[in-house]
Amino acid sequence: MNDRTAELLAAFDAGRIAALARVVSIIEDQRAGHEAVAAHCHPRVGRARRIGLTGPPGAGKSTLTTLLAETYLAQGLRVGIVAVDPTSPFTGGALLGDRVRMEKVALHPGLFIRSMATRGSLGGLAAMTREVCDVLDAFGLDRILVETVGVGQSELDIARLADTSAVILVPESGDAIQTLKAGVMEIADCFVVNKGDRPGADRLCNDIEVMLGLRGGAALAGIPAHHGVDLKAANPKARARAAAARDDAESWTPPVLRTIGATGEGVPAFVTALDRHFAYLERSGALRERRRMRLRERVRDLVERSVRRRLWHDAALTAWLEAELPGLERGESTPQVVAEALLARSVAAGTLTERTP
Amino acid sequence: MNDRTAELLAAFDAGRIAALARVVSIIEDQRAGHEAVAAHCHPRVGRARRIGLTGPPGAGKSTLTTLLAETYLAQGLRVGIVAVDPTSPFTGGALLGDRVRMEKVALHPGLFIRSMATRGSLGGLAAMTREVCDVLDAFGLDRILVETVGVGQSELDIARLADTSAVILVPESGDAIQTLKAGVMEIADCFVVNKGDRPGADRLCNDIEVMLGLRGGAALAGIPAHHGVDLKAANPKARARAAAARDDAESWTPPVLRTIGATGEGVPAFVTALDRHFAYLERSGALRERRRMRLRERVRDLVERSVRRRLWHDAALTAWLEAELPGLERGESTPQVVAEALLARSVAAGTLTERTP
Repeated sequence: MNDRTAELLAAFDAGRIAALARVVSIIEDQRAGHEAVAAHCHPRVGRARRIGLTGPPGAGKSTLTTLLAETYLAQGLRVGIVAVDPTSPFTGGALLGDRVRMEKVALHPGLFIRSMATRGSLGGLAAMTREVCDVLDAFGLDRILVETVGVGQSELDIARLADTSAVILVPESGDAIQTLKAGVMEIADCFVVNKGDRPGADRLCNDIEVMLGLRGGAALAGIPAHHGVDLKAANPKARARAAAARDDAESWTPPVLRTIGATGEGVPAFVTALDRHFAYLERSGALRERRRMRLRERVRDLVERSVRRRLWHDAALTAWLEAELPGLERGESTPQVVAEALLARSVAAGTLTERTP
Repeated sequence: MNDRTAELLAAFDAGRIAALARVVSIIEDQRAGHEAVAAHCHPRVGRARRIGLTGPPGAGKSTLTTLLAETYLAQGLRVGIVAVDPTSPFTGGALLGDRVRMEKVALHPGLFIRSMATRGSLGGLAAMTREVCDVLDAFGLDRILVETVGVGQSELDIARLADTSAVILVPESGDAIQTLKAGVMEIADCFVVNKGDRPGADRLCNDIEVMLGLRGGAALAGIPAHHGVDLKAANPKARARAAAARDDAESWTPPVLRTIGATGEGVPAFVTALDRHFAYLERSGALRERRRMRLRERVRDLVERSVRRRLWHDAALTAWLEAELPGLERGESTPQVVAEALLARSVAAGTLTERTP
């Protein structure tokens, strides 16, 4: 570690926000010193609660994120917001009515906001987001709110890195149920129907509860069983069973909440649900398991990243691959044969084990 | 290669759709024989034109995909549709008004429809989609239409594997311009404003043309320059220059088209634009480059997949990593140190080079 890095980390340990911002940049861009910085942060990780907010564009995730941040700040907690969304107002992307509110909260000294570059992330977006959350956690923030947009695979990967994942939906988004089908049921610890005073909110809440098996009713058309959704037959006892299960230390049934972002209605109940979920995670041992899983994935990501860096930055190996391409195009070899030969060459040459610059 | 695989590949070569479906499943699930199957397909790849259709949910991608498929089938071409979208009607997910039309075209003997499992794909969704496209290409299909939803990183990765990427937008989707900002400008070879008779279509077409520098006008608020969008100042000659550039063999300016999915209006012009883009790719040498890039990425994906399979399926290595986790949790070591030790152990033990079962 050089002097500049040591100085930066001293400022980081002293709680200076400017140092945090620089450390995050070093990690995100994998700049010189990033390994020392990550090593410094590692033993300090484990205090923050990580809350993911995911959902389709326009669901009001940024507004709810702002309202949660305000609540936590009012409790005297320090808050980080990580926006993994190129269209998030936190990135300066959108012009929403509550922009003023966001700008106001953004000035609070207890708040740190970071927007992740979603394209060309070294080592994958989910891995990088987890690493940035580790830095914020090590810095001493109490709550980390991760806002992700969409229903794609990468968004689900990002949602999985939170302690608690809240899925935000709105009645008018016609694709709400489709979002649910896209694998979101499995990752949701909490459902929030935002703009909950609009027509269709009752219906949407009901649909979600049916999908959760909390409520009997007509099966939702078009939801195939292999999506992992357990569509229990109409059963008046299902709801009572589910309610009882909520008090069970060993299981958790995602609550279906209603908020109105414009007025803040429902936000206190949302905060309470998040607290209750965290308490469940702690007493059930699930928190320990989620954190161990994150650590396992972190090591695996680092191994894979190291392999990629060593292989694809190796000039001799790159030149060898380029020379193989014309033969591949002519069909004289197959990608499998070339790939195995490349890997064998790299091992023989020590590419995977030598110290990297 | 065993007898069953040989028999299957003979049926594949004979053009039997059932054999194609089985080969795609073998590839997608990485079942026994997948290497022999991929090797068989490789020299047969390179005839099909790959067309990506991407855009936000509800833009009408599936409808346009159906209309394109009908057009190509009427031309006597064989068509593949690969739906990388858990909410696509092709996957049985949605109940749209034109479902009937899709079901009708789905019965055509010249059409093959495949929906990609978007979760837990072995080796990454983009890599797997490319591999499935290779199989469809090797089978002898003339056009492969890849439908992807959303604006996430993985969707952009998927869009990049097409010869031609069309971005589908609708006037009423308030996030259209945000979609453009999310990196879509760079990958779009063609813009389609669907539901082009609705209010706002003129404005959206105009906004896209401004972003493309085809049209002067007020700069779009909130689009920072680092998104790669060249916002040319108001310039009446820009459009004429751009039109001239379209006839230049060495450059391509994405056209902004308008369609009405419900009536099919604008679809012939869309087909013509796709043909013109392919002709441009051929004469400019860009097609050759795109295909070479795909081949290079294919080899790299295979290497990385092979490394992952060997490392994470190795029982001794997995046990070693599990034993390291408690020390990591106590902060006695760092993920970086454990990752490097794991890689060194795997190389020393020959894990990365031994034949896999």
